[in-house]
Amino acid sequence: MQMEQQILRIPGPTPIPPSVQRAMSQPMIGHRGQEMQALLEALKGKLKPIFGTKEEVLLFTSSGTAALETAVVNAVEPGEEVIVIVSGAFGDRFTKICEEYHILVHRYDVTWGEAASPDQLQHLLQKHQDVKAVFATFCETSTGVLNPIKDLASVVHQYSNALFIVDGVSCIGATETQMDEWGLDIVVTGSQKAMMLPAGLAFVAASKRAWEAIEHNQQPRFYLDMRKYRNKLEENSSPFTPAVSLLLGLKQAIALMEDEGLSTIYKRHQLMGEMTRNAFHALNIPLLTKDTDGSPTVTAVRPADFSAEALRKVLRSEFGLTIAGGQQHLKGAIFRIGHMGYCNPADVLQIISLMEIGLRKINKNIELGKGVRAAQNVYLNNK
Amino acid sequence: MQMEQQILRIPGPTPIPPSVQRAMSQPMIGHRGQEMQALLEALKGKLKPIFGTKEEVLLFTSSGTAALETAVVNAVEPGEEVIVIVSGAFGDRFTKICEEYHILVHRYDVTWGEAASPDQLQHLLQKHQDVKAVFATFCETSTGVLNPIKDLASVVHQYSNALFIVDGVSCIGATETQMDEWGLDIVVTGSQKAMMLPAGLAFVAASKRAWEAIEHNQQPRFYLDMRKYRNKLEENSSPFTPAVSLLLGLKQAIALMEDEGLSTIYKRHQLMGEMTRNAFHALNIPLLTKDTDGSPTVTAVRPADFSAEALRKVLRSEFGLTIAGGQQHLKGAIFRIGHMGYCNPADVLQIISLMEIGLRKINKNIELGKGVRAAQNVYLNNK
Repeated sequence: MQMEQQILRIPGPTPIPPSVQRAMSQPMIGHRGQEMQALLEALKGKLKPIFGTKEEVLLFTSSGTAALETAVVNAVEPGEEVIVIVSGAFGDRFTKICEEYHILVHRYDVTWGEAASPDQLQHLLQKHQDVKAVFATFCETSTGVLNPIKDLASVVHQYSNALFIVDGVSCIGATETQMDEWGLDIVVTGSQKAMMLPAGLAFVAASKRAWEAIEHNQQPRFYLDMRKYRNKLEENSSPFTPAVSLLLGLKQAIALMEDEGLSTIYKRHQLMGEMTRNAFHALNIPLLTKDTDGSPTVTAVRPADFSAEALRKVLRSEFGLTIAGGQQHLKGAIFRIGHMGYCNPADVLQIISLMEIGLRKINKNIELGKGVRAAQNVYLNNK
Repeated sequence: MQMEQQILRIPGPTPIPPSVQRAMSQPMIGHRGQEMQALLEALKGKLKPIFGTKEEVLLFTSSGTAALETAVVNAVEPGEEVIVIVSGAFGDRFTKICEEYHILVHRYDVTWGEAASPDQLQHLLQKHQDVKAVFATFCETSTGVLNPIKDLASVVHQYSNALFIVDGVSCIGATETQMDEWGLDIVVTGSQKAMMLPAGLAFVAASKRAWEAIEHNQQPRFYLDMRKYRNKLEENSSPFTPAVSLLLGLKQAIALMEDEGLSTIYKRHQLMGEMTRNAFHALNIPLLTKDTDGSPTVTAVRPADFSAEALRKVLRSEFGLTIAGGQQHLKGAIFRIGHMGYCNPADVLQIISLMEIGLRKINKNIELGKGVRAAQNVYLNNK
């Protein structure tokens, strides 16, 4: 292995497309000049279809967690009640943020690896009739589950007046998102996943209903005040110094997405998820999730008879292939493969072929090429 | 397939390592300043082990063909006799250059796909006792053959006083080369193959014997006059404006080669050649060459029952994977896979897995995963 090679297949940050890398290397422009105004004006319109909304998508210079916090501090006030769907580490993070701000949290704990159930949520909504908001994670990065956001939204609006707030960090741009049509009130994501950029930008959009709550919210907030971002974006500007190189990169990343087309991108991710899952089925290695709950962007594998950590270590040292481990109580028990953003079926086949060698290296007796063949078959049958 | 992805697996130009790409993007430096002097001084010593020589390796701003021409016009005069070993398109190119300069060529034609025979060469040397030079191709890029340069050199020196001139373009840096020990009199290569750079630099080294001929050679030559390059290199300079960005990249490429170590690099290429050949054996698809003649840097495949061109086309359109076709009379009859320079076993496995899908796409009935498994087995058994 040449030391230079990095095969980065964690569920974000992802590799960066070369043309995006080049775009980010352009000479720095002034953040209050005409070029930046033109850049923001161009970006505004282009982000809306990715979120499936007619509302403005606000741009924050922050990581994804600040975007989660933005949703909390702008939509909810101390002392108010909320339901947080906790199906993994990132649902859990929403509860921690809410608790920090003295918001009363009703947790809906979902077994890690399973998807949230609209029926269970309905039950909870009927029990807690005064909740101001329901928080959900679209793709739970820690478990590889894609929650049924559309159905959950529909239950929220049928059984409550709560705002439905969605963390879309590890899937927006890779899976269909119809914010307006599905009734998602606040949707947030980050730059380092399906958006094919380094970390450092976050995106937040809000429905008209959400904006009413945001306008009247007394919760103190300064850097994360969505009103400031909306008002400045109207003038094609930003309230604070933006991450200029990332915005230059975003323009090119979106150009790539427009070239490919959103529906083709969604199909590519579906295909990569299916290829990955079927490879492990063929090798008789259990996944953490049911196929129907599996995300198109990340797959979690729960080995029964070998060490996830040993496999990760050998893949790293043999091939420079980095995959992720488990979080919290799944640490050491699972490994996670990211297949999102700048990732193709050709990359999935490479990961599987290396994975098979890694398994042999840690003395797991598998038939070489069997997982690759299963993934190849998925590819051939899907086309 | 995202349009951005390029899986470039022709036998050069090769992909460029990211750190080399970055090195080439440094601010331009003056080509007569102290930085350039320091750069050339550093490069001089580092190129010698790659050639296996204590002589200076001269740097030309040109493609590889100019380096072939450099060898011809510096070592041989019009009217002199030479033997050219022609085992493919690049051996043939040596004859064309010689003929252009009114040099009398005795061709030793080797069937394309086979290696040159030291015995045959001996026979020819005994027949033509006045040859000034023997020209050979180390790795014949057009056929994937690695000629037995060491043995050929020994025959040349045992049976003649001829200079032995070697085109090492598609293998030097990837296969062991001991110019001094083996008695190679002039060795040339280019930047765009095992040296992991874009095309535009060529490298030429000459033995003391060769330098004597070069000094007294009356053949007119200006840009390609090796004496000018040697004299200027003594002062850490160059006779004409050098390709500065490529030299900046060369420094980093060599740093990567030193980090990995030449013997490890040679083993990696051996392994990649073996993985590739065994994959095709497993799939029952004939190669152009015998395994013992196969180059560690390029493999030529001669399909019996499918179209090489159809396969190349589908791999290009499905995956952005570019492999090479055949040259001259092998056009349409073979395809060639480059596995040299910035290329790892992980890349070979990817190529094979994509190749299998491509074969199915053009209705060649192969067992999916079988070639991958064979390559995986080679990898596991070699470690």
